[in-house]
Amino acid sequence: MIKVVAKNYIKEDKINAFIEVATQLVKQTREKDAGCIRYELVQDVKDPQILTMLEEWEDQASLAAHGASEHFKNAIGAMKELVEKPGDSNFYKTLI
Amino acid sequence: MIKVVAKNYIKEDKINAFIEVATQLVKQTREKDAGCIRYELVQDVKDPQILTMLEEWEDQASLAAHGASEHFKNAIGAMKELVEKPGDSNFYKTLI
Repeated sequence: MIKVVAKNYIKEDKINAFIEVATQLVKQTREKDAGCIRYELVQDVKDPQILTMLEEWEDQASLAAHGASEHFKNAIGAMKELVEKPGDSNFYKTLI
Repeated sequence: MIKVVAKNYIKEDKINAFIEVATQLVKQTREKDAGCIRYELVQDVKDPQILTMLEEWEDQASLAAHGASEHFKNAIGAMKELVEKPGDSNFYKTLI
């Protein structure tokens, strides 16, 4: 299993637009992407400009297929205009 | 519910020591702390010096009680010597 934390820094006036795009991405990913165990959109309670995807995938192959999907590429394209700066993504294995 | 991503940057020669302290913290938290839904230690697959806690708590009160517990304070004290620089913690609400 692989876990992903993908943290995005959104322009102050684009938060709602980002949430709209990301919500569609969550719905399409859950519906279409094999190997998706968890795919959530969360918002920092102190800084609403931080919007993060918390993900769990069965394996590297299912994560790679997600990254190559049309819905993912379309969402990433739309998100590019909405972010203040590049995000941080980490890919994790569980130790305990 | 509140979710926490607590990312730590560990000194290269202290990774095993950090894992040992964090593993004890995970075990004690799961055993003792009311309102703990999830408490995991994960390691970045590309950079083993990044070790992160992925947490879910029932509410702010249970998270605060965890932060005030002896086992948490002892672990944080031990971890201070093992990190390369201050970590990043985010506290999240789930949107979808």
